[in-house]
Amino acid sequence: RINADRLWNSIHEMAEIGPGLRGGNNRQTLTDDDAEGRRLFKKWCDEAGLSMGIDEMGTMFARREGTDPDALPVYVGSHLDTQPTGGRYDGVLGVLGALEAVRSLNDLNIKTKHPIVVVNWTNEEGARFAPAMLASGVFAGVHTLDYAYGRKDLEGKTFGEELARIGWKGDETVGARKMHAYYELHIEQGPILEAENKEIGVVTHCQGLWWLEFTLTGKEAHTGSTPMAMRVNAGLAMARIFEMVQKVAMDAQPNAVGGVGQVTFQPNSRNVLPGKVVFTVDIRTVDQEKLDGMRARIEKEAADICSEIGVGCEVEAVGHFDPVTFTPELVATVRKAAETLGYAHMDIVSGAGHDACWAAKVAPATMVMCPCVDGLSHNEDEDISKEWAEAGANVLFHAVLETAEI
Amino acid sequence: RINADRLWNSIHEMAEIGPGLRGGNNRQTLTDDDAEGRRLFKKWCDEAGLSMGIDEMGTMFARREGTDPDALPVYVGSHLDTQPTGGRYDGVLGVLGALEAVRSLNDLNIKTKHPIVVVNWTNEEGARFAPAMLASGVFAGVHTLDYAYGRKDLEGKTFGEELARIGWKGDETVGARKMHAYYELHIEQGPILEAENKEIGVVTHCQGLWWLEFTLTGKEAHTGSTPMAMRVNAGLAMARIFEMVQKVAMDAQPNAVGGVGQVTFQPNSRNVLPGKVVFTVDIRTVDQEKLDGMRARIEKEAADICSEIGVGCEVEAVGHFDPVTFTPELVATVRKAAETLGYAHMDIVSGAGHDACWAAKVAPATMVMCPCVDGLSHNEDEDISKEWAEAGANVLFHAVLETAEI
Ligand SMILES: NC(=O)NCCC(=O)O
Ligand SMILES: NC(=O)NCCC(=O)O
Repeated sequence: RINADRLWNSIHEMAEIGPGLRGGNNRQTLTDDDAEGRRLFKKWCDEAGLSMGIDEMGTMFARREGTDPDALPVYVGSHLDTQPTGGRYDGVLGVLGALEAVRSLNDLNIKTKHPIVVVNWTNEEGARFAPAMLASGVFAGVHTLDYAYGRKDLEGKTFGEELARIGWKGDETVGARKMHAYYELHIEQGPILEAENKEIGVVTHCQGLWWLEFTLTGKEAHTGSTPMAMRVNAGLAMARIFEMVQKVAMDAQPNAVGGVGQVTFQPNSRNVLPGKVVFTVDIRTVDQEKLDGMRARIEKEAADICSEIGVGCEVEAVGHFDPVTFTPELVATVRKAAETLGYAHMDIVSGAGHDACWAAKVAPATMVMCPCVDGLSHNEDEDISKEWAEAGANVLFHAVLETAEI
Repeated sequence: RINADRLWNSIHEMAEIGPGLRGGNNRQTLTDDDAEGRRLFKKWCDEAGLSMGIDEMGTMFARREGTDPDALPVYVGSHLDTQPTGGRYDGVLGVLGALEAVRSLNDLNIKTKHPIVVVNWTNEEGARFAPAMLASGVFAGVHTLDYAYGRKDLEGKTFGEELARIGWKGDETVGARKMHAYYELHIEQGPILEAENKEIGVVTHCQGLWWLEFTLTGKEAHTGSTPMAMRVNAGLAMARIFEMVQKVAMDAQPNAVGGVGQVTFQPNSRNVLPGKVVFTVDIRTVDQEKLDGMRARIEKEAADICSEIGVGCEVEAVGHFDPVTFTPELVATVRKAAETLGYAHMDIVSGAGHDACWAAKVAPATMVMCPCVDGLSHNEDEDISKEWAEAGANVLFHAVLETAEI
């Protein structure tokens, strides 16, 4: 079993870097705080006797040697970056849970046949630079390195510049590594495990996603002296699209979601009707056909809404992944570990996207989940119990050990 | 008659300061560009032999002496600040038209009984600091100086700090001046004069306004893993309020408007449902009872919309003025000037708010309007013809001369 106190202390030591305003974390990717979080993680890896490799996307790979020189490594990890108003556990539990597994192997003096590599993927959140899971996406060959380097934050800074600036751009070719398997421990970020009173979610699938970035073009005009009949009101078109997305998601029930998290008005002045409105619709479901049907309906109805008002409407997909089916053998290994350890568990579909979803494109992969309070995540109030963290890390430890072989 | 070439050249020389991206102007109040615009205006006033007074709100008063030491001055002016993506004429025509009237009096060697004071009011637009017409509002006793100094821009900088920073804080007590009359020339910013083929609008009234700043409190949550039924979606509540405001404005036709120009989402991340949404509803009409009825209905229906979704809803009025009836004698003077000069004219209600609306609280006041192309304003493409500018400035010149007496 892993050392729950050590895991818990490490999580909260990491949370001191980029603290939030209300007890959460703001350690967004490629910020100075991200660099500091990486330094702390590297220090811990050094202390655990791991050797560090860094690829051109800044992803960190900390390796514990195996006994068989020909055996491919088992990869285990997640991400240390957070949302602007994120919690302490989203991502961090997965990286430090993996580190804890390795620390426990050291304590127990267990040698594995396959090397074990603890991973910290760059820019999982996609908060500062869309899309999410950017580094694992390049690793899996879904995006090119140039595409990733050119992604811009709201201030116009590029991913490539910022990676170089914080000093964590490595020279390893992205995706050159071959994996025997990939495991990721993560908090559920949804309400199901807690409601069902389970300590462990055995993750069988992950919802697919589309991020549809709408750019609506209206006519900038004075809010006071422009008669209603003369307005080309992009804000009104946006409102109607929000309502329509809600309806599309409700019509797609059960097991589908749709919403909007990011909106920009231009020029954003109280007495000017916006000339430009940009926002991103986020839709997800585990059924590929349903997902693509939602997208098609949203694009069509948005075009109708805009043309009725006379507003220009452009849509760009700035994030996408297909629904994922995780590798049945690894899923069975996780299930068996939960059973052996005596944890209440259930099969579950991941509502959020994870680096494991891209890893699954190039290696056998799966995930372990533990509950979080009220299903709340991407919120500073995100919370888990130490017991849940312990359960998740123990299951991860056993599954990894099984796959890495003694 | 005034010198149309000189007026036109001055307008376009001023537009070099804080140029827009597409031929308009971005010379927002209390920016470095505002300071530079003020320096140019002061230089021109010096050259015209005017003496400059500056009050504690930074409003500039450039005085041409009269022949009667006991006569109160006739004030004539508008504002040199612009929207972030504003035009070259909104406000500027009124200040430089007033300067042109004085320059023409100098050319013609005409002395008036009453002094004439050319005014540049600070922060008319209200784009950077709400509310609009802030300095004239303090002048008229509608706001306190402390209230004005404490207003914040989106970056949290206060009006008071920024006024001191750009070096244009005067020491004259705001509102200490007494006015014999106040005239303001302005572009219509609406489509009526152009459609009716008139060169001059004789402004009889101004619409009243409410700016209602809504702060909606939802629950920050993951867009992927938060089931539809668990969402407290402040963005959806906002969308429904936009649609409702549109309906309230349409129900209040004719002669009423409602819309939203400014929106902020927090944390504004693609995969986080917003915890906080702030936006400002702008409603206007010339009928006091109708205006207050629109406000009451919007506040009530917004509360219903929010409580249905479970979203918290707070409303603060961040801008307001009652409908204004301009002084009939001055209105008649403007009408007579237009007739004497042979310009096609009509009576009109101002759709936008103006410093003249606050001046009307403490002095006889009215306005002169000229058309603008397609009724477009608060847009870099705002445009007027030189002939319209000339007509407006000539009518202003004659009305001022009539009131200032030879
Ligand atoms: N786990 C997580 O929050 N990932 C961010 C990508 C997403 O929006 O699902
Ligand atoms: N004239 C003008 O655009 N004033 C700004 C205040 C308003 O929104 O009416």
